[in-house]
Amino acid sequence: MPVGTAATVKAVPQGMLETLGADGVGAQIILGNTYHLYLRPGHEAIRRMGGLHRFMSWGRPILTDSGGFQVFSLSGLRKITPDGVEFRSHLDGSKHFFSPEHSMEVQLALGSDIAMAFDECLEYPAEWSRARASLDLTMAWAARSKAHFDAHKHENPWEMGSHVSEARHGAPAPGWCVPDVAPGAVPSLFGIVQGGMYLDLRRESAERLVELDFPGYAIGGLAVGEPRERTIEMIAATLEWLPKDKPRYVMGVGYPEEIAEYARMGVDMMDCTIPTRVGRHGQLFTSEGRLSIKNRRFAEDQGPLDPECGCPVCARYTRAYLRHLFASGETLAGLLNSVHNLAFYLDTMRRVRAELSN
Amino acid sequence: MPVGTAATVKAVPQGMLETLGADGVGAQIILGNTYHLYLRPGHEAIRRMGGLHRFMSWGRPILTDSGGFQVFSLSGLRKITPDGVEFRSHLDGSKHFFSPEHSMEVQLALGSDIAMAFDECLEYPAEWSRARASLDLTMAWAARSKAHFDAHKHENPWEMGSHVSEARHGAPAPGWCVPDVAPGAVPSLFGIVQGGMYLDLRRESAERLVELDFPGYAIGGLAVGEPRERTIEMIAATLEWLPKDKPRYVMGVGYPEEIAEYARMGVDMMDCTIPTRVGRHGQLFTSEGRLSIKNRRFAEDQGPLDPECGCPVCARYTRAYLRHLFASGETLAGLLNSVHNLAFYLDTMRRVRAELSN
Repeated sequence: MPVGTAATVKAVPQGMLETLGADGVGAQIILGNTYHLYLRPGHEAIRRMGGLHRFMSWGRPILTDSGGFQVFSLSGLRKITPDGVEFRSHLDGSKHFFSPEHSMEVQLALGSDIAMAFDECLEYPAEWSRARASLDLTMAWAARSKAHFDAHKHENPWEMGSHVSEARHGAPAPGWCVPDVAPGAVPSLFGIVQGGMYLDLRRESAERLVELDFPGYAIGGLAVGEPRERTIEMIAATLEWLPKDKPRYVMGVGYPEEIAEYARMGVDMMDCTIPTRVGRHGQLFTSEGRLSIKNRRFAEDQGPLDPECGCPVCARYTRAYLRHLFASGETLAGLLNSVHNLAFYLDTMRRVRAELSN
Repeated sequence: MPVGTAATVKAVPQGMLETLGADGVGAQIILGNTYHLYLRPGHEAIRRMGGLHRFMSWGRPILTDSGGFQVFSLSGLRKITPDGVEFRSHLDGSKHFFSPEHSMEVQLALGSDIAMAFDECLEYPAEWSRARASLDLTMAWAARSKAHFDAHKHENPWEMGSHVSEARHGAPAPGWCVPDVAPGAVPSLFGIVQGGMYLDLRRESAERLVELDFPGYAIGGLAVGEPRERTIEMIAATLEWLPKDKPRYVMGVGYPEEIAEYARMGVDMMDCTIPTRVGRHGQLFTSEGRLSIKNRRFAEDQGPLDPECGCPVCARYTRAYLRHLFASGETLAGLLNSVHNLAFYLDTMRRVRAELSN
């Protein structure tokens, strides 16, 4: 899933997202950040305008995070109580409060198709006792998230406006688990497995969530600085404790080779800012590995970025031109680099899907 | 003509330029800045890569300025002699020298379809005696520009590369004078009328250029701070002294109502950075006048930017969304605002053309 932090997948127009990738099918779902949208333009404003789909003119599914991650990583001065989190806006320092109930209200106001339970994001590294206490809080919040969400999920503001006319494209490959969301459908809430780097806590977390019976499950608190073997160990074990007929989503990963590996392990969904963020900084993924487009050796390189890639950037522009745009600080560099990297990610997933359905 | 300073019309992908405007015909010609391209990536590099068309993947005509305007406005420490201008790069302070011959070499290396004679850009206001001396220099430079250009114009590096496949679209309306340029054709050199705000000098300048027999003529040194009535007076008078069967081009203008007026007066070509530059700063042109998209009153305005406009931005996005993108500093704002403003300019010219051919 491309990440559309503030109602935009940074630098990329919606029309290009809809056709990304060698098969022209585009991004089937994007992620919106609850924390950012809550602060600006505000969830009530978005609700009044018919929800996030209509606001940003995106007719395909949207997943929203709970806001928790940004509250813990971006905002200053925060105070955690069993009830929720008090924090200050990173924009203007104003004081705010998020509880599980409030996070659900914001996500429902946005008209999210897949909302996420409100969780505490554990720092890394963390002692077992700290991870244990955090897990209890996250599990209590998951139950409260679900109760509030289920009571209000029919109040979804999603409505088809004149500016949204696209239907969801493309059927999933057989055996590939995709959440059952469609414009206008009742939204789903996923639970999030936490537990730090402790297998016993991860297991307890998964089992307690499964008992609450969510329509899908996320594995959170990974890719926070731990060694890669540890990430894989946590994912592999946790997947075993989650139902195989429900979507399983690993949050905030990863590099192309990583997402391919996780998908082969059985992960159905992933989101990551890497393709757009590193693209804006001139890092580009190709079938021959990663390259930095600002490198002098591309100054007169008239080949496409990646000869194996079918994206509109590789079809039209040379490495020399992309280098020139980046070196000159031109805005177009951010767009073209992001489009290529997103297409590379989608194509990576498409290849893995094809591999898995054989 | 949209202005593509550094081999990119800022923020806008080439594919969108090709389809801009209500008729979907797009920009038929763009302008490239000789000074900027000379400094970065360098005209010799662009020549080696087959010219600017191929470098930036733009299959339609390109007009280049002479570099003079930027030398006089952007660079530090410059020394003017009858031979040319010594100046320092605004990028790294390095020392460079531009003569009429050198400007021609750079424009030919770029593979420009329409090159401009090298001229001195007179400051405003300027005394008659200063304007008179400057005019003599500019006329001597025009003759040297033409001699050098004609001797070398068959060395055009323009070649169709695999990345350039678009042919020029659309036929001009009857009575509308469009320069005869096409990919692969021998390029043209236009002379530039100067003479400050003095009609006698403008007349002398026009007559001396016509004697040199250029295939087209520009009127330069306007929109430099003088009152609008003065601009109109200079344009109206100068048009009379230039042949009506050759393209007449007013450089560096203007607002939509201005370009419409100049076109009605008989001007065939204009270029301006206004639509893209002010667009990036949130100023948008509409059929109801100019607006500043950051205005709070658009916060929940769900109408399109301009109900009369057929551009892809007005077709898809609301004012509220455009305001949000701009207020949040999102890159996409620059792209969408520029696309709309460029479409508005092209549509303005299309309407004037239709009006003139009736």
